[in-house]
Amino acid sequence: MASKQQTIYFGRFIDTPTPTALRIRTGAILVNASDGTGKIEKADWTVTSANDATSKLGVEAPVVAAGDDGFFFPGFIDTHIHAPQYPNVGIFGKTTLLDWLTTYTFPVESSLGNPNSPMYTKTLPNGTSNPKQIDPLARAKTVYTRTLQRTLSHGTTTASYFATLSVAATNHLADLAHNIGQRALIGRVCMDEPATCPDYYRDSSATESLEASKACIAHCRKVDPTGLLVAPIITPRFAPSCTVESLRNLGQLASSEDVRVQTHLSENRNECALVKSLFPERESYTDVYDHAGLLTPKTILAHAIHLDDKEIETIAQRGAKISHCAASNSALGSGFCRVRTLLDRGVDVGLGTDVSGGHSPSILDAVRQTCFVSRHVGFLDGGDSRWNIGVEEGLWLATVGGSKVVGMEGSVGIFEEGAAWDALEIRLGADIGSEDEAEVGENGVSIFGWESWDDRVAKWVWNGDDRNVRRVWVGGRLVHERKS
Amino acid sequence: MASKQQTIYFGRFIDTPTPTALRIRTGAILVNASDGTGKIEKADWTVTSANDATSKLGVEAPVVAAGDDGFFFPGFIDTHIHAPQYPNVGIFGKTTLLDWLTTYTFPVESSLGNPNSPMYTKTLPNGTSNPKQIDPLARAKTVYTRTLQRTLSHGTTTASYFATLSVAATNHLADLAHNIGQRALIGRVCMDEPATCPDYYRDSSATESLEASKACIAHCRKVDPTGLLVAPIITPRFAPSCTVESLRNLGQLASSEDVRVQTHLSENRNECALVKSLFPERESYTDVYDHAGLLTPKTILAHAIHLDDKEIETIAQRGAKISHCAASNSALGSGFCRVRTLLDRGVDVGLGTDVSGGHSPSILDAVRQTCFVSRHVGFLDGGDSRWNIGVEEGLWLATVGGSKVVGMEGSVGIFEEGAAWDALEIRLGADIGSEDEAEVGENGVSIFGWESWDDRVAKWVWNGDDRNVRRVWVGGRLVHERKS
Repeated sequence: MASKQQTIYFGRFIDTPTPTALRIRTGAILVNASDGTGKIEKADWTVTSANDATSKLGVEAPVVAAGDDGFFFPGFIDTHIHAPQYPNVGIFGKTTLLDWLTTYTFPVESSLGNPNSPMYTKTLPNGTSNPKQIDPLARAKTVYTRTLQRTLSHGTTTASYFATLSVAATNHLADLAHNIGQRALIGRVCMDEPATCPDYYRDSSATESLEASKACIAHCRKVDPTGLLVAPIITPRFAPSCTVESLRNLGQLASSEDVRVQTHLSENRNECALVKSLFPERESYTDVYDHAGLLTPKTILAHAIHLDDKEIETIAQRGAKISHCAASNSALGSGFCRVRTLLDRGVDVGLGTDVSGGHSPSILDAVRQTCFVSRHVGFLDGGDSRWNIGVEEGLWLATVGGSKVVGMEGSVGIFEEGAAWDALEIRLGADIGSEDEAEVGENGVSIFGWESWDDRVAKWVWNGDDRNVRRVWVGGRLVHERKS
Repeated sequence: MASKQQTIYFGRFIDTPTPTALRIRTGAILVNASDGTGKIEKADWTVTSANDATSKLGVEAPVVAAGDDGFFFPGFIDTHIHAPQYPNVGIFGKTTLLDWLTTYTFPVESSLGNPNSPMYTKTLPNGTSNPKQIDPLARAKTVYTRTLQRTLSHGTTTASYFATLSVAATNHLADLAHNIGQRALIGRVCMDEPATCPDYYRDSSATESLEASKACIAHCRKVDPTGLLVAPIITPRFAPSCTVESLRNLGQLASSEDVRVQTHLSENRNECALVKSLFPERESYTDVYDHAGLLTPKTILAHAIHLDDKEIETIAQRGAKISHCAASNSALGSGFCRVRTLLDRGVDVGLGTDVSGGHSPSILDAVRQTCFVSRHVGFLDGGDSRWNIGVEEGLWLATVGGSKVVGMEGSVGIFEEGAAWDALEIRLGADIGSEDEAEVGENGVSIFGWESWDDRVAKWVWNGDDRNVRRVWVGGRLVHERKS
């Protein structure tokens, strides 16, 4: 039986069911979007042509073919990204975490929804200030639209977003993600500790943090009652910015509402010292969250750099997840996350761009930085290669690893029956077959023709960018297509 | 007086005369190409419009204006790149230096000029082999043309190239660089040690290394008698691949012919151990070269990672230069180069892509990796920020630092009267001024409008790519222009 809701995808499919090897298959996948979720209904790896596909799959559905010079790949999962910080990508100077927050981050975040933000008094290059009459919510729309489009253009089909303190702007992010069609966890940021948060960007009380979080949870559930595309996530910024009361409130809310949680953990040495001074009664940074009931199997902890053995053990026991943000950890001088240690101890790890501590909205770039940083960790261990994360494991972290971290294992990040069609069509460009071929290619990848597909994927990982992402689907819906 | 050889460049000019700050000027520069060298004749920083430029500079020359959304920047200098390895960018797997050479590098290098290269027996993805009838020199033309165009498209106006053992292919690279117009040092690679070099890719004797080097020197000097655009550089691959006799011969040749030298130094621990076993009579890796007379102020040493104090002292005393190749050192698990230590000890340092140990042909990418790795070196020192290389110093290394390394200080890499017009027009894209603006930009940089020019340069460094390089000039000649 034909159905208007069915689509056949034909071509080369590459994914990473294990961290050790690419799975490279050619054939066809049938996606059924009739219930709105766009799942893979059937796959046939004997199909050899588009015509063959309809007969072998037994449906008269339209066929979408990947180019011979490319392949389908699962959409990337960004397990840690600050949507309002996108305007600041690449701007961090010589700061480290704590001065970076006050110099760059709080001003840009507060400008979305708060007319008293320092952004509106900053002198612009032309000598003027940003006009105060800019509607802060219009600014949120501009910034969030750009963030969603940029991340989609780089192949991020699922993202776990930190928004800002503004309920209205955060709800707007949920609306935009739902309309544009990116799978998104939407977190209203909570910060109520007067000793560490600026007056212009702080909840007036723990109660305000709680009530505002509830309002955003309710909005997300209204936007998407299924919670499959857009879902709320409780977001205490990090321990230093929250009172004990607020952390406890949010832990209780996570439990009573059965909602995901995200926060930062042990990113920077000065931050760790600050936590120690602010929470002297707790035995570790991890214990601050654990004591508040914030460590659950639905919790995403970003960074997790300076952990002792006991903290890792606690995280593993609670089933909490870790978002590894290599670029940000380098840029802000935070330190090395021992990804291999975490994996060996049974902790699930995914990758995060951490825009704008991280400079790039691209998870492909995060794969590269993860590979490099893993070798640097090995340098500290006499060059031991056991620390190394290669292309295959990096891509596995970016897809399957990420799916575990956001609580969607088996549903996204892999091409299996029953998983959603969250996918990218990657094109690498034509072979350089002719000896006279002398044009610089249209993207960063150069294919000469002799490369295996493992080689080609490596070339994509190391020199690819948004130009290689031709089309992007989320739940079977086409949500991005390059014009050229 | 008007001259057909004069051109006025008008707009914003940014360069880095010091490592600590960007120099940002608006005005006009007059370039005179009448003697073929295309030097900056005059600059006027009071010019405020294209019309104003001709009257203030007193010439009726054509005016080339940089867009309001961009600036002119000195062309990048790649102090270490292997042109024949470009087809392998991104392909290195889990190898480190010595197995990487035999697995990936010798096969691809030998395929340019050598019909017996393993490349021609390798099985292709479609089950066939590369046809033996491919003319190896035609292959050299394809690969070298692509290498030159790619590096130019990323803004490399000067490159110090390792070629291969083939005299004919190496000479062809010199011809292509001259024709296409990239400033290039051309090195015919010497390797004659039977214990370490494969039979299919080795000089038959030290004499062959010497005579082949002489032939390539003669060819380069014929192609460009001035030596300003294309010049030869004596290139023993690295100590392990050369006999003592060959190193001594090449050191004498460098002295008698007054030619530059380039080689690798102390990249990988296994390599260092190999050098120790092959040259037991020398007190260090550096001493192997010094003893052969290969350390001169015209010598470029790539990597220089595992050096002791005395080796650094020797390098500083000889005035030899170092090419820092951060991406390659990470990819091949080589180690951390202490750039700050080298600079503090008075050694000149520039940046190298080290294609294809490094994955990217872009020096802008090398700036990024240099900044990150510098922070990682700081991690080993308790997070001390003195190791940090920021955007300004990274760009300084990529231009002024590079100019010192290739022996062209003051002639390239800076916008001063008397320097060659080796320049890039960088465009960042239009401001996101409208609240309704919702298109994903044409390149990786997002400008929102409130950023200072220091901010904008940081955004370019961190998220820019070849799409931002609109036009490239070498010695006043337009050598690359993007079509879109």
